[in-house]
Amino acid sequence: MTDELHPIIPLDSRRTWDCPWYGVRQDRIRLPDGAEGVYNVLEIPDAVWIVPVTAGGEIVLLCHYRYPLQTWIWELPSGSVGPDREDPLATARRELREEAGGTAADWRHLMTVATMKGIGTERAHLFLARGVILGATEHEPAEVMRIHPLPAAQVLQMARAGQIGDAISVLALLLAEPVLNGSS
Amino acid sequence: MTDELHPIIPLDSRRTWDCPWYGVRQDRIRLPDGAEGVYNVLEIPDAVWIVPVTAGGEIVLLCHYRYPLQTWIWELPSGSVGPDREDPLATARRELREEAGGTAADWRHLMTVATMKGIGTERAHLFLARGVILGATEHEPAEVMRIHPLPAAQVLQMARAGQIGDAISVLALLLAEPVLNGSS
Repeated sequence: MTDELHPIIPLDSRRTWDCPWYGVRQDRIRLPDGAEGVYNVLEIPDAVWIVPVTAGGEIVLLCHYRYPLQTWIWELPSGSVGPDREDPLATARRELREEAGGTAADWRHLMTVATMKGIGTERAHLFLARGVILGATEHEPAEVMRIHPLPAAQVLQMARAGQIGDAISVLALLLAEPVLNGSS
Repeated sequence: MTDELHPIIPLDSRRTWDCPWYGVRQDRIRLPDGAEGVYNVLEIPDAVWIVPVTAGGEIVLLCHYRYPLQTWIWELPSGSVGPDREDPLATARRELREEAGGTAADWRHLMTVATMKGIGTERAHLFLARGVILGATEHEPAEVMRIHPLPAAQVLQMARAGQIGDAISVLALLLAEPVLNGSS
């Protein structure tokens, strides 16, 4: 029987597809009306996004070639929480270091929120990193990106104007805005 | 050879998994350093999200049971662009009607932005719908949701406080905020 808290009940489950980064779990389910159905769940690790702000008041953007979109987009540093690395803040520190060569004096959690509500399990952990100092990066061959520190006001304007190509990066920037403006 | 505009080149491609809503395309690729690799691309239709505002100044939220997350979340009406229904605004009108029983006097496009940059093809088309009138809904059995019109100021506060569980809904609300406040 379904209940108020969990109105869709899993009956059984099998793995139908996998790659090293995510996979698909196919569940047979019971719906609230008693009917049976199938639900495909994309099982994907949580991820982090970082708004890196330098002491000079610049936000560190990446211009990243995104193969699924076949284009370069502006975005924030981001990356997946590893299976052996469960703490999102530790992941954020690692991704800032690997993608932008950055370390930060001060970290602030902005929000944790689901990114694929109807399809998959991923949650995004959004962080503001201040006092960022840039150094050498550790990009993998498939990570085709360039680092562009730009004045914070310009980046926030780009975010509102639709010039940042990644939705969660735009969200993180809009959440950081009142903090950077000193009103939160 | 790779070039500046498209530094990752597809060599060949095969479909490795499918369900009625999305699928996985596995491409053999050439990276900028000349090495070959594999990229799995989630091929998924674009989707729309709607910020529906009634004449009385309420934003129409859904409390939706999301099976992949095993929980109820607050979110905006949203849905996929059908293969035969390419216009995002037409999709938004249909989803507002199906999910909230709503029709709107006035539509405004807020942003179009990629939601799964490193993984898949989905782009979100975000709309503000004003002068919304609610009526009868057309939910499918697997769509377990309730409709809650709430004062706009309360919903915007919920969005900033992390009480809206879907990232793209939070983004759409933050983009609608200055428009609703008359400053954009």
